[in-house]
Parts: sequence; C-alpha cells; structure tokens
Amino acid sequence: MTTTPPDVIRCAYAELVVSDLKASREFYVDVLGLVVTYEDDEAIYLRAFEEYLHHSLILRKGAEPALAVLAYRVRGEGELAVAEAYYRELGVEVRRVPAGTTRGIGEAVRVLDPLGFPIEFFYEAEHVERFTQRYDVHGAGALSRLDHFNVNTPDVPAARAYYEGLGFRVSEDIRDDEGTVYAAWMFRKPTVHDVALTGGAGPRLHHIAFATHERHQILHICDHLGAVRKSDQIERGPGRHGVSNAFYLYVRDPDGHRIEIYTHDYYTGDPDNPVISWDVHDNQRRDWWGNPVVPSWYTEASRVLDLDGKLQPVVERTETKEMDVTIGADGFSYTRADGADQGFKLGEQV
Amino acid sequence: MTTTPPDVIRCAYAELVVSDLKASREFYVDVLGLVVTYEDDEAIYLRAFEEYLHHSLILRKGAEPALAVLAYRVRGEGELAVAEAYYRELGVEVRRVPAGTTRGIGEAVRVLDPLGFPIEFFYEAEHVERFTQRYDVHGAGALSRLDHFNVNTPDVPAARAYYEGLGFRVSEDIRDDEGTVYAAWMFRKPTVHDVALTGGAGPRLHHIAFATHERHQILHICDHLGAVRKSDQIERGPGRHGVSNAFYLYVRDPDGHRIEIYTHDYYTGDPDNPVISWDVHDNQRRDWWGNPVVPSWYTEASRVLDLDGKLQPVVERTETKEMDVTIGADGFSYTRADGADQGFKLGEQV
Amino acid sequence: MTTTPPDVIRCAYAELVVSDLKASREFYVDVLGLVVTYEDDEAIYLRAFEEYLHHSLILRKGAEPALAVLAYRVRGEGELAVAEAYYRELGVEVRRVPAGTTRGIGEAVRVLDPLGFPIEFFYEAEHVERFTQRYDVHGAGALSRLDHFNVNTPDVPAARAYYEGLGFRVSEDIRDDEGTVYAAWMFRKPTVHDVALTGGAGPRLHHIAFATHERHQILHICDHLGAVRKSDQIERGPGRHGVSNAFYLYVRDPDGHRIEIYTHDYYTGDPDNPVISWDVHDNQRRDWWGNPVVPSWYTEASRVLDLDGKLQPVVERTETKEMDVTIGADGFSYTRADGADQGFKLGEQV
Amino acid sequence: MTTTPPDVIRCAYAELVVSDLKASREFYVDVLGLVVTYEDDEAIYLRAFEEYLHHSLILRKGAEPALAVLAYRVRGEGELAVAEAYYRELGVEVRRVPAGTTRGIGEAVRVLDPLGFPIEFFYEAEHVERFTQRYDVHGAGALSRLDHFNVNTPDVPAARAYYEGLGFRVSEDIRDDEGTVYAAWMFRKPTVHDVALTGGAGPRLHHIAFATHERHQILHICDHLGAVRKSDQIERGPGRHGVSNAFYLYVRDPDGHRIEIYTHDYYTGDPDNPVISWDVHDNQRRDWWGNPVVPSWYTEASRVLDLDGKLQPVVERTETKEMDVTIGADGFSYTRADGADQGFKLGEQV
Repeated sequence: MTTTPPDVIRCAYAELVVSDLKASREFYVDVLGLVVTYEDDEAIYLRAFEEYLHHSLILRKGAEPALAVLAYRVRGEGELAVAEAYYRELGVEVRRVPAGTTRGIGEAVRVLDPLGFPIEFFYEAEHVERFTQRYDVHGAGALSRLDHFNVNTPDVPAARAYYEGLGFRVSEDIRDDEGTVYAAWMFRKPTVHDVALTGGAGPRLHHIAFATHERHQILHICDHLGAVRKSDQIERGPGRHGVSNAFYLYVRDPDGHRIEIYTHDYYTGDPDNPVISWDVHDNQRRDWWGNPVVPSWYTEASRVLDLDGKLQPVVERTETKEMDVTIGADGFSYTRADGADQGFKLGEQV
Repeated sequence: MTTTPPDVIRCAYAELVVSDLKASREFYVDVLGLVVTYEDDEAIYLRAFEEYLHHSLILRKGAEPALAVLAYRVRGEGELAVAEAYYRELGVEVRRVPAGTTRGIGEAVRVLDPLGFPIEFFYEAEHVERFTQRYDVHGAGALSRLDHFNVNTPDVPAARAYYEGLGFRVSEDIRDDEGTVYAAWMFRKPTVHDVALTGGAGPRLHHIAFATHERHQILHICDHLGAVRKSDQIERGPGRHGVSNAFYLYVRDPDGHRIEIYTHDYYTGDPDNPVISWDVHDNQRRDWWGNPVVPSWYTEASRVLDLDGKLQPVVERTETKEMDVTIGADGFSYTRADGADQGFKLGEQV
Repeated sequence: MTTTPPDVIRCAYAELVVSDLKASREFYVDVLGLVVTYEDDEAIYLRAFEEYLHHSLILRKGAEPALAVLAYRVRGEGELAVAEAYYRELGVEVRRVPAGTTRGIGEAVRVLDPLGFPIEFFYEAEHVERFTQRYDVHGAGALSRLDHFNVNTPDVPAARAYYEGLGFRVSEDIRDDEGTVYAAWMFRKPTVHDVALTGGAGPRLHHIAFATHERHQILHICDHLGAVRKSDQIERGPGRHGVSNAFYLYVRDPDGHRIEIYTHDYYTGDPDNPVISWDVHDNQRRDWWGNPVVPSWYTEASRVLDLDGKLQPVVERTETKEMDVTIGADGFSYTRADGADQGFKLGEQV
Repeated sequence: MTTTPPDVIRCAYAELVVSDLKASREFYVDVLGLVVTYEDDEAIYLRAFEEYLHHSLILRKGAEPALAVLAYRVRGEGELAVAEAYYRELGVEVRRVPAGTTRGIGEAVRVLDPLGFPIEFFYEAEHVERFTQRYDVHGAGALSRLDHFNVNTPDVPAARAYYEGLGFRVSEDIRDDEGTVYAAWMFRKPTVHDVALTGGAGPRLHHIAFATHERHQILHICDHLGAVRKSDQIERGPGRHGVSNAFYLYVRDPDGHRIEIYTHDYYTGDPDNPVISWDVHDNQRRDWWGNPVVPSWYTEASRVLDLDGKLQPVVERTETKEMDVTIGADGFSYTRADGADQGFKLGEQV
C-alpha cells in the first residue's frame, strides 16, 4: 500500500435488517432499554444512554435478517477522501454516499472490505441529547455505549493483517502451538477492541456489543428476559471472559442477531500495551469460570449484505475450528496452566 | 404423634468429613473466606462474618468424605428434653450428647432422623466475636451466614410430612401434573428455607449454603477460583434460581462436597405466606435464565454417617427423576408459561 | 400486667396524610417505584415488589401532613381480642375497627398507645400479586419490602419498657456513661428492628423505612432525584449506619415526611442475639464513615393523629439531646474507640 | 509557540513526599490495597491492579509532606526531545533526567511548568506483572488504575490555555454569568480528564485519583476505614459528581495528601465531544445529590516542590472563589435548573 489509511476513531454504528420491527422494538427498547432517536414504519434508530450521535444501531425492516452495514467514525471530514483512495488502491468496491443517505449521518464512504463486509466511514453526524445523567429514564439494565463489533472470517491472520493496515492494534488473541490463530481482538479506541476477528465461515456478523457500567446491570437483563418468559433468548452467560477480562452476556434478538452486553475490560491505550495470547486449549480463555461455550455460539452468525443489499456468499473456514479442538472428539482442554493437573469442569460429562 | 416437637429456630451448623485438611482449608478459608474460630490437626471450626456462635461449619479429618452431622438450633435448653421425647416416640435412634462433645457446643441431642440423617439439636453454644463490621478482614466475596441445608431423599412427600411434623413450613416446591413431587423447600426462620428436600437417592447431603449480601460477592468467588486455576470447582452457576428467586453459585470442595453461595431470597415469616408450586417442565424453575442444570448436580451428593460414624446405606428414588423428565429422552420442558410458544434455550443442541 | 400481649409478627403498614396526592405520587411511584395497588381521589395504596398484602403504605389526602396510623400484623385473627384486652388493661383508648374500614384490611383493633401513637393490629388482609420476579417492572432502585418504623418519643427507657411488654426485643441502643438512653432498636421479625425509638419531642413519626436488596439500588434513587432536580429531597446519606450496619438513605417526601431506604442489616432471630450498645460520643454510631448527621434529621419529624384524626400534642424531651452532646457547644465526640487518639472528621470545621 | 508540544498519552504517576512510610503504607497498601512493586527504607513504589508499568505512585520519605512530581507518559522516546524544545521555548526550567533516576523509569524530561508544578515526561518504563485477573489478591475495594491529577492554580483560564497548548482538550468546566471560570477538566486519554484545574491558591496538588470498576468497591473503602476507626480520613463523599458524572470519594492520607477514588465517567474520545459548562451556582455541579462540599476540600491542598526539592511559593487566587459564591454570606445556589423553584438542601440550616 502506498496510500495512508483513514484515521479511524472507533466503531460507531451497525445497521441490522430485521423481519419484524415490532418484535425487535420489544427486545431492543423494552428489554435492553436503548433510547429511540427516531422511528417510522421502515426503521428504528437507537442509541445508548451516554451517546450523543444520532444512533449506534439501526434496525431496518427487510425480508431476510442480515447485517447491512458496520460503520466506523473517522477523525474528520477530510478522512473520507483518504478512505476512498485507500480502498481504491486495495481494489475493493468503494462508494461515496451523500449526507442523509442514512438518517442522522453526513457524507460517508462505503466499501465492501477485503473480508467481505459492508463498511462505512463517516465523520459528520447529527448530535442529540446525551442521556448520561437522565437517571429518571435509566432502567435497571442501562446500556452506556456501543463497545465493539465481532465478525466471523475464515482466515484470521489475513483479517488481522488487513486491520493492522487500517491502523488497528491487537490486544489479545487465541492460538495453538502449531501456529493456528483462532481469534484476534483489535482496537483503535483504548479498550480491548473495536472489532474482534473470530475464525469461522464468513463474512458473517458474530455480534455487536454494548457496554454497561456495572455487572448487576447485565444480570438484570437476564432477570428481565426471565420475567417476560424469553429466557431462551439468553444464549451464553452471564460470565467472565478470560480474553478481555470483561463480564459478558450473549442474547439473541428475535431474528437471531447476537448482542453482547459487556463491561469491565481494561485500558489499552499505551503503545506498549502487552498483547495477551491465550492457548486454545485453555478452558478459561472464553470463560474465566470454565463454563462451556454453547455450540450455537461457535456456529451461528448473521449473514451480511453487499453494497447493493444482496446477501454475500459465505466462505468456510479451512483451518482447525476452535469448537472442534476444545469440545470435539479429539479435543483437549485444560483448566490449570501448568498442564500437570488438568481437568475439565465438573458436571459437564453429558 | 402425641408429643410436641422441639422448637427449632434455624439450621445452625454442619460437620463434614474431609480427606485433607490443608486442601480443604485452602478452599474454605483462602477462597471462600470463612473465619477460623479454632483449628488443630483433626478439625477446623469455621464461621461466616455475621455469626457469633462458635462455628457454622466443621471440617473433620477422616478417611472417607461424608456428612457427619446437620445441627439445628432450638429455642432453649428445655427443648432438648422435648426433642428426646419426640424422637423416642418416632422410634429412631436418640442420644444425649454431653456439652463439649463438639467443641463450642453445649449439651445436645443427636438422632438418626426418619430420613436417615444424623441430626443434632442444641441451644447452648460458645459466643465469639461477630465480624459484621470487621470490614478490614472482609474479602471481596464475604459470606454473611449459613443459610440452609439441602438433602437428597427418595420420597419427598414423606420427608415433607416429617419436617412439617417438626414445625417446618413449605415455601415452594416442584411438581408435575401427575402429582409427583420432585423437591420441597421448608423453613423455620423466615427465609425460603432452612432445609430443602431434593428427590434422589438418599440419605445424602446435596449441599449446604452460605449467604452473601450482594451478588458481586458471589461473582468474585468465581473470579477467585479462575485466578487460582480451579474453575473446575465451579459446578453450576452463577445464576438466578426460579425457585426462591435467589442468586446462586454451586462450588465443589476438594472432596466433592457441594457448597452453595446464595443471596436475595425473600421474607416468608407471615403465616399466610403464599406457597409457590413450580411445574417440573418449566425450564426456568431451577434457573430463571433457562441455563441448563448440569447432570452432576442432579446425580452427585455426599454420603452421610450414622451416629457411630459409619456410612449410611443409600436408597434409590423410585419415582420419576427430575433430570429425566427435563433433559432425558422423554423429557419435555417449556420456557413460556402458556405452552403455546414453547422452546428450549438456544445453543443447547448438543 | 396480668394479660398477655398480642403476638405481633412485624411492622406492616403506615398511613400518611399528605397535602397533594399528585405530588406525592410523583415521589412514591415515579421516583421510589412503589407499586400502586389501588388509587382514587382520596388515597393511594402502595406496596413494594416482594409484598403480597394489599399495601404497606397509604397516602391519604388531607389538610395537614401527619401520620394517621402505624399498623402491626399479628399472628392470627384471635390476637385481636388479645390486643383489645391488653390495651384496655393498659388503660388507653381502644377501638374495634370493622373489616374494610381500611381498604384491603380485615377487622382490626386500633389503640392510642402509651407513647401517644395511633397503632393498629390486624391479621386479615387482601392478597395481591407478589412482584418478586416481575423484573420487567422493577426499576433500577427497586424496593423489596417495608422494613421498619422509627418514632420520636421523649422518654426512651419508658418506651422501651412498653415495647418489651409487647414482646419486642432490643437489638442495639445508644447510651452515655451517665445512663442516659438516646435511642433503642426493637424487633419482632428477626431483623435489627420493626420499630426504633428515637429520643426527642413526641409522639412524632421520625421515618418509615423500605428495604432494597443491594446498595446500588439506593444510589440510583439519589441519581434519580438529581436527574429530576430534586436533590434537596435527599436529607442525609447515603451512608453506612454504625447501629444496624445497614446502608441507608433518608429522603423527604413533598410534605416533609421522612422515608429511609435501607439494606444490609443482620439476622437477630436467636434468643441470645447480642445487644450492641453504642456510646453517644462515638462519631461512627450514626454513620460508620463519620459523616455528620444534619440538624434537621435530629429536629424535624411528622406530627401524629389521634384516633379521631386530630393532631396529638407534642411533649418535649427533658433529657439530654443527642444532637447537643455530639455537635453542640458542650459536645464531645470521638472517632477512635480507645479515646486516646480522638478526632472529628476532617473538613467539618465550619 | 513555534515548536510542537510533546504527544502526551495520559497522566502516568505521581511522587508524594510523606513523613512516615509505615503510616503511609498502612493507608495505601492495607486500606487502599495498592500493589507494592518495590519498597525500601526511602520509598514505596505502588501500582493499581490493571497497571503494568513499574508504578503509578511513589511515596518518598521526607521532612515535609509535598508533591515531588507529576509525570505524564508520552507516545515514544522521540517525544522527549520535543518536550525539551517546547519547554525551552516556553522559557521555564527544563532538565534531562537519566534513565533510572526514578526507579523503573527510563530517560525523562523534567520541567517546572508555567503553573509552577514539577512535571516529568517519559516513555520508557519497566514492565511488571499486570494483576488484572489476579482476583486471588484483589480486595473488596480493588483499584484498577490511576485516573487523573487535580491541581490548584490561581488563574484557571491561563492554566487552561497552557494545557490546550500541550494538546489537552476541555471536557467540562464551572463558570458564572460574569465569565469567571472556577475549574476546568482536561484530557488526553478519552476520559473526562487527565488533569483538572481547580481555581485556588497554587501551585498546589489538590488530589490524585484512582479508578475502580464498580461503586461498591468505593463503598468498601469507607467501610474499611470505619472498621479501623479512621473514618476521619474520609473527607468528602462518597457521592456522585455532577461534573464528570463519576461516583467519587475523597480520603486524606496520614500526611493530609488527598486521594480520590473514582468510577463511572464517560468516553470523550471523539473530536466533537460536547463540552459541558456548569453554573457555579448549580448546587448539583459538585455533588449530583446536592450534598455539601466541606470547606477543607476547597481550602486545603498539598504544597509542591521545585526541581531541586524546595517548596514552591504559593500565589493566592484573586478572582472570586467557588466556596465563597456557593456557601458564603453572599452566596446563592440553586437546585432546580429553571431557577423558579430554588432551594438549598434540607437540613443544612446550620
């Protein structure tokens, strides 16, 4: 590459295609408590309590559930031309999108990135009231802000190299002794990630994540789903991640899109922030408490659209899959780091 | 029965036989943070931070892990004679135990109750410092007090009738439409239970439970076990119970004895406290969030000793087993109460 | 006394006269989140999330803010006659009140107790839905249940003797070396108190208290009041009490009635529960962190009505007042227990 | 200025002179739980649980309590020359400090900044174990990382202009209608601040702040100080700031140095992050709950040393003081934003 990448600040918003706006609204507004900035018969624009841009999530009505766009905010309007040149040199599809194409968002550049995802870069956006101290409307499970995207991609090292080219740095990854990389966490803002690359058939959206301040807010979301008899939308967790150290919960929206609720990762902003590599056989890497990862978490994800709104084809992963090495027939995991005193979690002898 | 039962206040202490005092100490003192009242080469006497009696748990060194005694406190010294008469009429083995037989405990009556458990009744006990406000020694996972015992017994209705005779009341139970009772929660102090009766091969001790004030204290115990690479001692949870509404965690000690950490149940002290009956097919009864109960939780439990310290024989349950109806081949569970829109938890398609 | 006192279970409900039902509703329902069982133009009947009786608080419209009744629940209908006889022997005014006199409450006995308070004893009450697991309606500051009453009375030892006669026991008190008693905490249910006796001009209602499960729920109520720009309704706290060890907050309703939000006291149900006496000069007795008690907390309280709805006259305290000995001109307080290294809180050199 | 400022990442460490290392250790290690990286008879080097540089706080034994240095980390070794040139052009005292002058820190540049503070810029530092997941040693009040410095300076607009020159941006400030600026919060890392400028006699150190993840960790520090009978070291709080929205606590170390424990501020990293200006008369600006600021918090602060270790002279503030306009004789504050319904907090009628 001879051109400079655009200066990305952070992950900024996602647009999901959903099949039933009313059902989605019950989930995202009534249960998760996101704030509605705007809604009509076609779409709902949502933000979390500490966000002042127009939205961090759009739910758009459509025939088939999918990811329509992942948007990164850049440091200024001038970065759009930089992005355009950068992706043209990369040889992928690039489009200028006029201001207002997406409600609340100024002029933007959209690309189909080398991993096959529909990505938008923008700077200008409408400001709305920041509800940081609107405790009169904060529920018991208040979400503070969008935290990160997590995508499935077959070749993690290739995806990592692409994102490093874009100026992202790695905070943590999962590997094995043979050099296979199963996942990598990459950031621009000084948290553990703006985007995680999870080895698997792709391009698919694994999940988007919102942050809370405290863990009890995540527990309340579980309690709330239980109260409305939708506990089956709780897919995995709550738990403590090994990677990132974050407290987490994975829930599935009415279309199966996966949302993570996330808190307590750590500051990564210094240039020498130590990278943590986890052994794929370490039973505490995905859950510090050793609780099992459910198979659907490994295998299911949302399809993604191209820039014309058509489903992108999915390419299978050819390298070893994390699910197979950790819970499959040939799998081998350990709880204790030294390997001498290994054991799986009690009770999982299904 | 023509005689009056003793006036039981609450569950008071348990004595467990453990195979390695040092390993047990690491678990109960270093991880769970219980306070050592006294210890020598044969036993460790422990209490939680808000307890002022000598101990609520004794770990006694022995060849084979087992439950040696479950002790209930009665309202006064005069209740010992009442207990003696009551159990003599019941026709079970009854012994007067002189003060000091158990360190810190006054004169007591020991019986092998009709369910086959070694039960002690006592009133007098040595008072020690109550560490309620000793925040300088409270760790991040501080336990407040013993909350309840949970025992496996083959015939739950029979066990319930026995405990009702002893003045306990039912707060909640698990049933099915055919009238099978799978479990019952019974109390004297005004919480959900002092003892839970869990249908299964018995007499066996399913677990003893300690209470914390807040949920983050329970989460810390998980984090701590992860940090010392003993996450495989986390058997089930953390989660929210449907029954009792308590937030829970089940951990296993080095001998496999099961300890629950428990908080947030509710006041049951009024005479008309409503009894809650849960359908055994309700997928949220054992975990409000629909997370699965691991098989070991259903099948494994601690053997119990008779009054001479010999292992009691175990009698199998002949009625339908909860594990079988909920996750077995013929099992059928639901998440939504109306039954119309039933579904299991996502991701559990193992 | 030759007659037996009625068997009181616990404090059960209070009725407050308020001047503006709409303003009170905003406070009790919109901010505190109490559940409305019934309301009309004359009164609002409220309960907390884990209560199944019709109400634990009634707000009744009236010209002058006051306490109309404090109600204790007794163990059964038969206790009404016991109560009637007991108070007749005490020589105070006693009335039988037909079922339904108070909406949701069965037949009752009302007395003007020797301390001058309008007290009701009842057993029968309408059951309503218990919202324990209705997490879909629990706000971030969810209240679980009524916890206690706190009353101002001039002569604490006399009031204590009266309540001991009624079967209440003392958990904690505040004294000085000369034998003056400034306050006492008394209970029937096994918490620190059902009623606290606070030395001061009386009869006046100092406050009623609701319990939460966790402290963050109390902090949210503060945040909420800040968000609606009513922080001046926060009178004292949040903080940790020395007495009771509870985490607390005092707020004032639109008429100035004081409500405490309270959590984390301890189990007191054993007959030998140790009584804790605090030195009135101990600067951590009222706030474990040494934060000052604001003067209004000592001096202001709600007037109480007699059985005909007229304001009871108030009698001044003649003994030394707690406020005077701790912050007055001749006051002397200490932070360290040994007295050798005494000091007031930094920064309070007003 | 014709030269470029150094690229500062964040506030990095402070060095405090303390009179009694043993007493300081009890406070910072035993109560606050900071991790000792190194200690000898002259100094203790401390870090919080998520920090991997050698220290974020040094306590150095000395005759007179003071601030010895505030250190900012720059983005690379090359920034040292940039810093040196920048401050030489500013005309203040500048010194190159060889690696190891401060244990664990590489080569550095020290300046006496235009506000009169001894400031260090460094990049190289020794890495030590990051205790993020060492939950076995995390106490109930675990501190995560250094968050910010807060300094007293007489002329806030001048100080703000100086820090803006250094590349810091303002997140919030406190003003009045006449244009007086009372305080400003400025950041490099995307939190509310790396340094706060508080109008007052200066140069003095108002406080340094450490972050926790959750509020209960801050509450525990209060409980712990109560338990060791040092509640008088709690100067102000806990509370919720209006400015920054953070939950806070101010404690004073044995020499009177002020430490804040801080959590829950918000992300400020986007270029258009809205600046919030608070009216100095807004009673919720310093405490969202309207709790009063104690006078010592306004008036007391730590003296600072020059580059030779001598006490810097202190210059009084000549503009209106925040304490005077808010609580003094001519003061006027409001709780409600519209001004129509103004009132002070109840109970503060001393």
